[in-house]
Amino acid sequence: MPELRQNFMTKEWVVIATERAKRPDQMAVKREAKPVVSFSEKCPFCQGHESQTPPEILGLPDGEGWKARVVPNKFAALSPDCPPERTIRRSRRSMGGFGEHDVIVETPDHSLAMAMMPDSQVADILRIYKIRHDQLSLDPRVAQVTIFKNYGTDDGTSLEHPHSQLIATPVISYQVRQRFQEAMQQFDDFGCCMFCQIIEEELEGQKRIVLTSEHFVAVELFASPAPFCTHVYPRRHMASFSDVSAKETADLGRVLRTMLAKLYIGLQNPDFNFTIRTAPAECVGVRYFHWYMSVIPRLTRTAGFELGSGMFINTVIPDEAAEFLRNVKVEAAVGVS
Amino acid sequence: MPELRQNFMTKEWVVIATERAKRPDQMAVKREAKPVVSFSEKCPFCQGHESQTPPEILGLPDGEGWKARVVPNKFAALSPDCPPERTIRRSRRSMGGFGEHDVIVETPDHSLAMAMMPDSQVADILRIYKIRHDQLSLDPRVAQVTIFKNYGTDDGTSLEHPHSQLIATPVISYQVRQRFQEAMQQFDDFGCCMFCQIIEEELEGQKRIVLTSEHFVAVELFASPAPFCTHVYPRRHMASFSDVSAKETADLGRVLRTMLAKLYIGLQNPDFNFTIRTAPAECVGVRYFHWYMSVIPRLTRTAGFELGSGMFINTVIPDEAAEFLRNVKVEAAVGVS
Repeated sequence: MPELRQNFMTKEWVVIATERAKRPDQMAVKREAKPVVSFSEKCPFCQGHESQTPPEILGLPDGEGWKARVVPNKFAALSPDCPPERTIRRSRRSMGGFGEHDVIVETPDHSLAMAMMPDSQVADILRIYKIRHDQLSLDPRVAQVTIFKNYGTDDGTSLEHPHSQLIATPVISYQVRQRFQEAMQQFDDFGCCMFCQIIEEELEGQKRIVLTSEHFVAVELFASPAPFCTHVYPRRHMASFSDVSAKETADLGRVLRTMLAKLYIGLQNPDFNFTIRTAPAECVGVRYFHWYMSVIPRLTRTAGFELGSGMFINTVIPDEAAEFLRNVKVEAAVGVS
Repeated sequence: MPELRQNFMTKEWVVIATERAKRPDQMAVKREAKPVVSFSEKCPFCQGHESQTPPEILGLPDGEGWKARVVPNKFAALSPDCPPERTIRRSRRSMGGFGEHDVIVETPDHSLAMAMMPDSQVADILRIYKIRHDQLSLDPRVAQVTIFKNYGTDDGTSLEHPHSQLIATPVISYQVRQRFQEAMQQFDDFGCCMFCQIIEEELEGQKRIVLTSEHFVAVELFASPAPFCTHVYPRRHMASFSDVSAKETADLGRVLRTMLAKLYIGLQNPDFNFTIRTAPAECVGVRYFHWYMSVIPRLTRTAGFELGSGMFINTVIPDEAAEFLRNVKVEAAVGVS
């Protein structure tokens, strides 16, 4: 029978549609393999083409070359030169489009998917995220920093060279504000961080755990809005991604790489997005929020029901998705079980 | 320069990305025309194939045949046989998947897009929506009725025969609850329905108006999350779709058909979704909410930034979208200007 599940963190309901349910392996993407080249003459992110991007913000050197670099997005959604001034004309509220929009070029190798990178390289990328996150959070005009990756041709990515993005905005988004208010309410009612509570419960139950390491836990959401929606939580309570230590970053590199490799192998290289959900700069250190990564393969599309209700229909039972991913064998990475 | 705009109804911010901005006509879909047949041997919704659907809930007769019919969805997301009982196990909240999932077959003609229908046929479909909405709202187990249409191959639609859907759920979704709370807050602060206020302001400014009729106003959202996101508001204050009169329904048939024809012609038959946003049964008659239709062509895809922040990036300026749609000529429909 179908079931409704409520996301404890957001209070959103999802429909686990058992009548339409699919086995996890049925979600694997069937598509033609594209030819893979490690250098493309036309790609502005390939080594040797550095002059085709705006001037570098940050680079991770590697001998004569580089391991990774951060450049401003040439087609930025927001502009650092736009003052964040508000205009209020009756119901019409607007603001200058101030913001930063970085591209993080993850590797000089045009063909190297993050799922196939050495763990240490993923850790390097996470370190770069943190540096830029921390730098931008110091700007008093910045209210929120969103770090994300779009992977795949069909997935909002216009360039195939491995990259991720960061957008700093002068406002806190409604979604983030709401999630904070829910977390704060829970803390006020029960006296504990609801994320710490979920991590504890999931570790006890084990059913939805995909993998664990010394510092992180990857788990399929109980009320997953889409197949294989995975959260990677730090075990230690930290409100902000800023709080992550060097040791934890190295560990997360292994966990994230392993998680992505499981999706790559198990679901045959699906498109995916990931994002880091973290406390805005003004809320660093709060006891009620807990940063984490959210990884969502793009296997289904949303349509009118999701638009009209904000509820999602998920055709894969999260417990089965977790079991499936646990069983996908990835070349052993030290310290990940 | 880019601009941030805040949706007055939801408090959500969107980025109007002028650096990436496109002229409205650049959003037109370039795709190959599919062969159109008015009868398909394989389609369970075509006339003569009535036995291939579950038993009819409601039919609109037309001589020996039918104009439109409502049947249960064969692959329903929720089930009327599932008791809506809650289970709370620490952070895990779930509920039996009770619900109704109707398919509204809009015409016996396999190829007749709603944009091409006679106005009266669209009005008939709206009447059917209202009958089923009202019937299901009487069921004490039903908390919310979501009416929606998915149009297009790439858009969550598995069957091409013209149809729409209705899902009744035993919970009020978080999104609807939040929108209600915002509307209530506005009413408490300013003493008026914020939708009535927006309608008045948009009619004064005229810039974002697409079309108006005796009873309805179609307008591009000031803070539109996506290109051509259009709201169709009744001029008269009504919290619920249940309150719409027969005369208003006939008028809405003309307005909706004209609106869809403008999208069809102007953007070359794009995929779209529409939904009716209405007060849940428990809130009928409230002074702070105002039902409306939301029509969104699917011209862009969301990705990691939207996932991570809940904010959208829109590359078409809503004022220009409105002007573009105003200028798309549709065969005159009486009473629509």
